[in-house]
Amino acid sequence: MISQTEFERRLNAVRGQLQARGLEALVQFSAVYNLYLSGFAHSPTERPIVLIVPVEGEVSMLIPLLEEDHVRERVPIVKELRIYREYPGQLHPMAQLADFLRELGLESARLGIDSDGHGSIYGYRGPALSEVLPEATLVNVRDMLERLRVIKSEEEINLVRSCVPWGNRLMEIIREQVKPGVSELEASLRAFTEASAELLHEMGEAYRGYDNGSIPVLGGFVAGPKTALPHPIDDGRALQSGDVLIAWGGPRFAGYHAELERTMILGPVSERQRELFKIMVAMQQVAFEAIKPGVPCSQVDHAVLDFAKRHNVLQLTRHHSGHGLGFQIHEAPFLDSGDTTVLEPGMMFSCEPGLYELGLAGFRHSDSVLVTETGAELITNYPRDLESLII
Amino acid sequence: MISQTEFERRLNAVRGQLQARGLEALVQFSAVYNLYLSGFAHSPTERPIVLIVPVEGEVSMLIPLLEEDHVRERVPIVKELRIYREYPGQLHPMAQLADFLRELGLESARLGIDSDGHGSIYGYRGPALSEVLPEATLVNVRDMLERLRVIKSEEEINLVRSCVPWGNRLMEIIREQVKPGVSELEASLRAFTEASAELLHEMGEAYRGYDNGSIPVLGGFVAGPKTALPHPIDDGRALQSGDVLIAWGGPRFAGYHAELERTMILGPVSERQRELFKIMVAMQQVAFEAIKPGVPCSQVDHAVLDFAKRHNVLQLTRHHSGHGLGFQIHEAPFLDSGDTTVLEPGMMFSCEPGLYELGLAGFRHSDSVLVTETGAELITNYPRDLESLII
Repeated sequence: MISQTEFERRLNAVRGQLQARGLEALVQFSAVYNLYLSGFAHSPTERPIVLIVPVEGEVSMLIPLLEEDHVRERVPIVKELRIYREYPGQLHPMAQLADFLRELGLESARLGIDSDGHGSIYGYRGPALSEVLPEATLVNVRDMLERLRVIKSEEEINLVRSCVPWGNRLMEIIREQVKPGVSELEASLRAFTEASAELLHEMGEAYRGYDNGSIPVLGGFVAGPKTALPHPIDDGRALQSGDVLIAWGGPRFAGYHAELERTMILGPVSERQRELFKIMVAMQQVAFEAIKPGVPCSQVDHAVLDFAKRHNVLQLTRHHSGHGLGFQIHEAPFLDSGDTTVLEPGMMFSCEPGLYELGLAGFRHSDSVLVTETGAELITNYPRDLESLII
Repeated sequence: MISQTEFERRLNAVRGQLQARGLEALVQFSAVYNLYLSGFAHSPTERPIVLIVPVEGEVSMLIPLLEEDHVRERVPIVKELRIYREYPGQLHPMAQLADFLRELGLESARLGIDSDGHGSIYGYRGPALSEVLPEATLVNVRDMLERLRVIKSEEEINLVRSCVPWGNRLMEIIREQVKPGVSELEASLRAFTEASAELLHEMGEAYRGYDNGSIPVLGGFVAGPKTALPHPIDDGRALQSGDVLIAWGGPRFAGYHAELERTMILGPVSERQRELFKIMVAMQQVAFEAIKPGVPCSQVDHAVLDFAKRHNVLQLTRHHSGHGLGFQIHEAPFLDSGDTTVLEPGMMFSCEPGLYELGLAGFRHSDSVLVTETGAELITNYPRDLESLII
């Protein structure tokens, strides 16, 4: 759980940024950002949910009736509610939002927004905020909301650290499930179910999901030739000797996770597999060593790409060396040749240079890295060497 | 799997609609709609993926390098690719999209769009399409894309029907897992893992997920007082005698699902539980009987609300009577007092009037209903009566 102090820290940061830009309030539609600022988890459906953070005054929210009891019981940061019965309902939720903003004295204000209306595609239709509140001046502040998340607080870093042992445990359980002839997908499901059951036994009634339908420890693996696609689709394939596996997973505590992925090989290991595995591990080491404060993100990716070129595997790379992480699975900034953001202490990244050879397999480890005052700290700590990862 | 004939049907419908509106091509950013029109599944991240459907000529796509092999091997409907190395990369993907559209002769065309740029919040930033292609005229056609999906084809209806036995099987497995003292969430995980394993055993290597990370049979239940929240969050609670459960789930074949939810009671059953359960079942029956072609959606919801009022439970309702379903979990139109869409044969809805009493429990069944030439057909068929649902 995120403390009320942490939510207050985030809201104060938002208020400071709004003031600096001459804005009177934030009007925010995104479910992800609403969870980040208020702790209210919901699945975005046809029903708009809108968080309003004025520079001065209480936080309020427009919600559908079906979320009223949830917000009143579980979201103390939100002090005032405007409740609409349903979408589309007799009076459209956007009309009710406009009424609510007028009552809050914001009808002709300068407002920061994350989007100009509810962006869901679950069958929703409706006017833009600029149409229902034409006197207001709307300024898109998504870049601000994103930047607020880039430097992690101690509380956030501790949440990520607390995920690490469970990611390691999941990797161990995956190794136990893997054998030739077994359905990959069934083994994946059994692995994360076992890891989740262990976590539930340890935490007991104190456990609480971070979002609707979240699984306590989610993960699994893909195997065989389809690992050559960085984002493959699961199928009914059975494991075979000689398969390369890419395993991933762990818990998300209050939304925070430590990214952990490991390439494993169900022996025997071929010469080409051994060669690409070793280059991949070395590429990841190059990235780790390039991460330090004051260095642009692009420099990390260039170091990896130069190394790949020297080892004649540049043509097997398919993506950048990593992405920001924390509250979302992917966040800005990116360890990408085109991202000039300068690394600062408190940033967190996945570090995951990969190699993909069509017809053979993909090779990718991913670890979570924290930028420190002097360099980089590896947050995840599962073994990376080939001998430890042969099954 | 969706047949190539079905994809052709969808593309022809899109082309017809574009022509009718004087548009030369569709430029589409949404991962959901791209899956619907091309069969290409991907998780939207920081990397824009854009489907281009011209009124005349081949379907093309802008993709990042990491999806190239996937699209070439698995997405035959897309004939031409423009591949960018990475986001943000040396040249922004939106600049490359503008170049690509210019090469396709569309730089000053009238284009249908689903949004004015990539809407992801996974750390992405970039210009709107209207900024990088200022000569083009952009017309938002989301309503058209949505309307195309409202009347289901035979192939779509058959996919939904084929989900039904697996939803029923999941309900049976849930009943086997449920006993006092067991963690609800662990029982949910074990239930869907067992149902998924059975499905994988039956389908063998023919099984294919519809999207990244999809679980073959997903579902579970919530229990106890938190069922009084229509969208509660899972926690570490252990089951107790007298708990009300709301169970849900089933497979998604090529993205299509049959919505199935059942209220179950871990006995003994209290008088108030029995009373609210019976009114809920009767409300659902009122909805079934109100669904027929020629009737507006709103009339179904009004019939339910009138019934609730006569039985003094209007104050326990929290949401409309149902939503469109098929490719997405929720789709338009809605069985809502404010939706005047007239019912037509081939529409499919969830039918799920619910009652929620804070401190006690929620009571909601959900079934999938197909509008026929003469009335309504219940697609799901799991027992609805209390005696069948006491555990």
